[in-house]
Amino acid sequence: MKRGFGSDNHSGISPEVLKAIADANVGHALAYGEDEYCIRAEKLFKEHFGEHSSVYFVFNGTGANTLSIDAMVRSHDAVICAESAHVNVDECGAPQRIVGCRLLTVATPDGKLTPELVKTRLHGFGFEHHSQPKAVTITQSTELGTLYSIDEIRALADLAHQYGMYLHVDGARLANAAVALGCSFREMTTDAGVDVLSFGGTKNGLMIGEAVVFINPDLAEGFKYRRKQATQLCSKMRFMAVQFEAYFHDELWRRNAQHSNRMAQLLYDKVKDIPFVRVMYPVQVNGVFVQMPRHIWTELQKQYFFYDWDMDNDVVRWLCSFDTTEDDINFFVEALKRLG
Amino acid sequence: MKRGFGSDNHSGISPEVLKAIADANVGHALAYGEDEYCIRAEKLFKEHFGEHSSVYFVFNGTGANTLSIDAMVRSHDAVICAESAHVNVDECGAPQRIVGCRLLTVATPDGKLTPELVKTRLHGFGFEHHSQPKAVTITQSTELGTLYSIDEIRALADLAHQYGMYLHVDGARLANAAVALGCSFREMTTDAGVDVLSFGGTKNGLMIGEAVVFINPDLAEGFKYRRKQATQLCSKMRFMAVQFEAYFHDELWRRNAQHSNRMAQLLYDKVKDIPFVRVMYPVQVNGVFVQMPRHIWTELQKQYFFYDWDMDNDVVRWLCSFDTTEDDINFFVEALKRLG
Amino acid sequence: MKRGFGSDNHSGISPEVLKAIADANVGHALAYGEDEYCIRAEKLFKEHFGEHSSVYFVFNGTGANTLSIDAMVRSHDAVICAESAHVNVDECGAPQRIVGCRLLTVATPDGKLTPELVKTRLHGFGFEHHSQPKAVTITQSTELGTLYSIDEIRALADLAHQYGMYLHVDGARLANAAVALGCSFREMTTDAGVDVLSFGGTKNGLMIGEAVVFINPDLAEGFKYRRKQATQLCSKMRFMAVQFEAYFHDELWRRNAQHSNRMAQLLYDKVKDIPFVRVMYPVQVNGVFVQMPRHIWTELQKQYFFYDWDMDNDVVRWLCSFDTTEDDINFFVEALKRLG
Amino acid sequence: MKRGFGSDNHSGISPEVLKAIADANVGHALAYGEDEYCIRAEKLFKEHFGEHSSVYFVFNGTGANTLSIDAMVRSHDAVICAESAHVNVDECGAPQRIVGCRLLTVATPDGKLTPELVKTRLHGFGFEHHSQPKAVTITQSTELGTLYSIDEIRALADLAHQYGMYLHVDGARLANAAVALGCSFREMTTDAGVDVLSFGGTKNGLMIGEAVVFINPDLAEGFKYRRKQATQLCSKMRFMAVQFEAYFHDELWRRNAQHSNRMAQLLYDKVKDIPFVRVMYPVQVNGVFVQMPRHIWTELQKQYFFYDWDMDNDVVRWLCSFDTTEDDINFFVEALKRLG
Repeated sequence: MKRGFGSDNHSGISPEVLKAIADANVGHALAYGEDEYCIRAEKLFKEHFGEHSSVYFVFNGTGANTLSIDAMVRSHDAVICAESAHVNVDECGAPQRIVGCRLLTVATPDGKLTPELVKTRLHGFGFEHHSQPKAVTITQSTELGTLYSIDEIRALADLAHQYGMYLHVDGARLANAAVALGCSFREMTTDAGVDVLSFGGTKNGLMIGEAVVFINPDLAEGFKYRRKQATQLCSKMRFMAVQFEAYFHDELWRRNAQHSNRMAQLLYDKVKDIPFVRVMYPVQVNGVFVQMPRHIWTELQKQYFFYDWDMDNDVVRWLCSFDTTEDDINFFVEALKRLG
Repeated sequence: MKRGFGSDNHSGISPEVLKAIADANVGHALAYGEDEYCIRAEKLFKEHFGEHSSVYFVFNGTGANTLSIDAMVRSHDAVICAESAHVNVDECGAPQRIVGCRLLTVATPDGKLTPELVKTRLHGFGFEHHSQPKAVTITQSTELGTLYSIDEIRALADLAHQYGMYLHVDGARLANAAVALGCSFREMTTDAGVDVLSFGGTKNGLMIGEAVVFINPDLAEGFKYRRKQATQLCSKMRFMAVQFEAYFHDELWRRNAQHSNRMAQLLYDKVKDIPFVRVMYPVQVNGVFVQMPRHIWTELQKQYFFYDWDMDNDVVRWLCSFDTTEDDINFFVEALKRLG
Repeated sequence: MKRGFGSDNHSGISPEVLKAIADANVGHALAYGEDEYCIRAEKLFKEHFGEHSSVYFVFNGTGANTLSIDAMVRSHDAVICAESAHVNVDECGAPQRIVGCRLLTVATPDGKLTPELVKTRLHGFGFEHHSQPKAVTITQSTELGTLYSIDEIRALADLAHQYGMYLHVDGARLANAAVALGCSFREMTTDAGVDVLSFGGTKNGLMIGEAVVFINPDLAEGFKYRRKQATQLCSKMRFMAVQFEAYFHDELWRRNAQHSNRMAQLLYDKVKDIPFVRVMYPVQVNGVFVQMPRHIWTELQKQYFFYDWDMDNDVVRWLCSFDTTEDDINFFVEALKRLG
Repeated sequence: MKRGFGSDNHSGISPEVLKAIADANVGHALAYGEDEYCIRAEKLFKEHFGEHSSVYFVFNGTGANTLSIDAMVRSHDAVICAESAHVNVDECGAPQRIVGCRLLTVATPDGKLTPELVKTRLHGFGFEHHSQPKAVTITQSTELGTLYSIDEIRALADLAHQYGMYLHVDGARLANAAVALGCSFREMTTDAGVDVLSFGGTKNGLMIGEAVVFINPDLAEGFKYRRKQATQLCSKMRFMAVQFEAYFHDELWRRNAQHSNRMAQLLYDKVKDIPFVRVMYPVQVNGVFVQMPRHIWTELQKQYFFYDWDMDNDVVRWLCSFDTTEDDINFFVEALKRLG
């Protein structure tokens, strides 16, 4: 399939990552994370997230998010999230089934929670008829291509901690956020008070592999059993570990994310003045959300696969990835303009 | 780590499989199984398991087994299995947590269920205080390195169906069994009346990837949602699909399994007459279970990693894999003999 | 504690119901619903809800609602309900934990769903990332003391069925609704297309006992096991059955509900013109929701227990029950006026 | 139905208990356990089980046992129990569904665990593939009508605590055990090191009502939410509380249990020398398990309802209850003898 803008999941494997997998394909290695590759990768995560952090590799984002929630709450607790959060909308109810807890959703204009919005859900403490708010989860960068500033994250962490709650970050596109903010992973997470993190790699050049990073060490208690029981323990884990090693090496994560963010900016520049196109949110990372007449985007979908995002309002989503080229954008915009 | 006999999970990726992953790393592909690679691989599975079968790729054996059970039973039902079954012993309670059902275990001499053993659990039908027997699960080849004949499988399927129950096969080492029986996958499963199958690949040369094969099409209803909700849906699924394609191509599965079975036979031949060694079960596939004085096997473990299988009786497990060499066996047996 | 307006759960047992319990306290009876009392009560339910209906007694409303949902959906499905629904707000996440499904909530002005509101949630069918809408649940009468007309229920049932979905009614106060509408139970449920019903008794004079009524017989399949496994099977069930028998005898349910509705009307009449009191919703059954200055209602709470309903807007809830007297209302309104 | 020996659940309500319910049926009371009756009953439990204990009323034994387990373990843990334990055999998988954990069963000759039997299950600690043993549950008196001595309970508690585990007692027939041992509730539980207790009442004269007693206060953390979420919170809880009050008053529990134990002894005396009858276990509390030719017991079942206990061995179960009379026994034994 030709390259398009359907999803950063549609791209393949970064060459450096594929090479690392091939290089690790020698001899035997202990399974289930006890091998030297995993130990080396764990050290790298500690360098990024702090000496007290710990990392657990899992298969995918659903696993990372669901198990992060599982580590923060019990079934009678509740997790506060944006209505548009992936964990609310796009996991087919995984947290409800695996954790058994409630998600308390809040409508947001831009996919971002604020302390004020979170506070609207902070009641019923001690009342046994109500699920007890125990965690907040945010997505960085958000499902709408927007960004939290470091201060905004810290404010949410402070509020959560003040109520004895935890803050989780769904970092499926954490690298894109770090690039956009010009900061390290650590400044956005450990230093901002985040307790647990879904660290994404797949959307930014990995083949298969995400990680749960516990910054708050209390939450890691018993986690290895939880991961196993929830079907997320990989046997030949060395092949996950080396993907992350390659990802951190020479800041591959940054180079890839920088590229996809830049491509989105380019796409934005080329479509923002097209009369029948309206860009919906600030283009801060690698996504462009646009509104246009339905007959145009449905026609364009005959040439390119992409998702309608909001059918009621004719908003569609375009995502760039590490392998998007300027030509890809030029051809795409040409095709779009021809339909106008 | 040098090659040993700890687990067939300790081996790496078959070169053909790795090459297939690299070859698929071009352009974009739809995520979540909608791509052309997946469609091609699904066709291959239909060729092997019949036109009415369907296949769903999952990440690992825990996922395959748990989701197979989820497809066969509701939480108030029970699944009959051998006490030694992986799903009973080695999944940290995944079926209990994800499906919420009971496992009704039966002690066996050799890891194999028989109709007579299953019948000891067939009571309480219609009595609401008892979980309702609804499925039987067997492992082919078993956790003890033993084998079901095709007739034995058919007899269990017939019994299950007679009671309105289903038969599941945990095929983590299905290829080793097919080689040992000199039959096709289909003869052992579809033709023998199996309803659903965990089709293993990882232990026989794949990197990451197992499959749930529904032979009984009724059981596949709604499964795509179940897989997603249980955190087992892969995004860049093309890289799973091509592993299976390579696995079927030129019968790589058979060549790999033939080799590991043959190596186990060689290992058996070389140890069976050592006076302090007692081989516990017939060596039918790729595992050798031996009993010996504890001070010997613990000493050997300083040079080679392998699992004690039954501490109370000083039984240890040695597994061969597709990459085991004759030299590996010679050196290992040498080391063993030196300790005697 | 003196009688007040805190909850219809604060009242005791209707004398007729208590007498029935005492009368049934002779000899032995089979446990778990196999006794003659239960068989008799089941017949009564069939008379009310139709020959094809079936009834299962459970302990409480949480059990009735959760098990009704369990009968309609699987964990990857979703149930559409009003944001204010008891099952969403006041069950501490029981459906999430026991069923593992999502609730798709809709904001409503008056606690009532409409086809238009439900339709806003009818999307994502066939898309495995989204929980699949499979049921609608409404409360009759609602948590806000409002009522669905029979036509409104039928419209929701029709919409649900058109989409292959089911309609559940939380009838914790079904008797109050029947009285207000001047109709039978059947006209509001079976005849209007309802599939399954939580039939409430406790709030209207029973001691302990609710019932799940399956009007759509398909949904009852396997339910007896589900009830047992979900801890809702009573052993000495004759003492539940006879409560329902007494409830139906001479229309005790109607007399009790008529009285509590009438008392709420009286309370409404007496407070509606108090200058500092604003009645929030039409008083259609046995509840009166009023807004007033906080210092007044918190002062009144020193004499009478009642719940603040909406702290942000200073709305409190007063409920009448089968044992409320005119004097109770007079004294209460006196106390209120003195605080104005 | 005439009185028989089918189950102590077939008996009715002790007159003292029924009177207490009627006496409490005055005025209003707060719901959900906040009323004065509940507070009074809680005090009584503290008198019996110690100042640091706490009690939570639930609806039935399934609820008490399942929620006790829920308080002791997480889903990746395991609970060790006798194969014949009610929680294993007769809850239709409630612990698996509600808690999601494994039960590790041990075959026993007499329904009783011993430290030696428990030790056979104490392995795999720290190994993530295995559920982690975290609790032991025993039934006092057992499902086979046998008894643990206080010392035997203490030995199990000591073993459990030594491994960082908890001891739960399913006390569905705790009163019968206390009478047989001639001890108080406390001597058998709190003083013997028990952590949590399912305190049964229904089988010994209550109408509806069991209790979870936390002797180890750590385990009660968050329990009120767990009870609510698991559908076991009663609204008009005063009517449960007063049943327990009556149960403790003047040691009604002891009088009732003494009587049923004595009746079982009488029944035993009258059948033990019948040639075709073989009594299977020591008759220590209120049950008699006998083996006899099938044609005799099936014939007897035409006159009296009772359960076959072990079809394969033609063992049936007879239970006495608080309302069994000497005449009941005489007539029953007459009928039996006529069939011999």
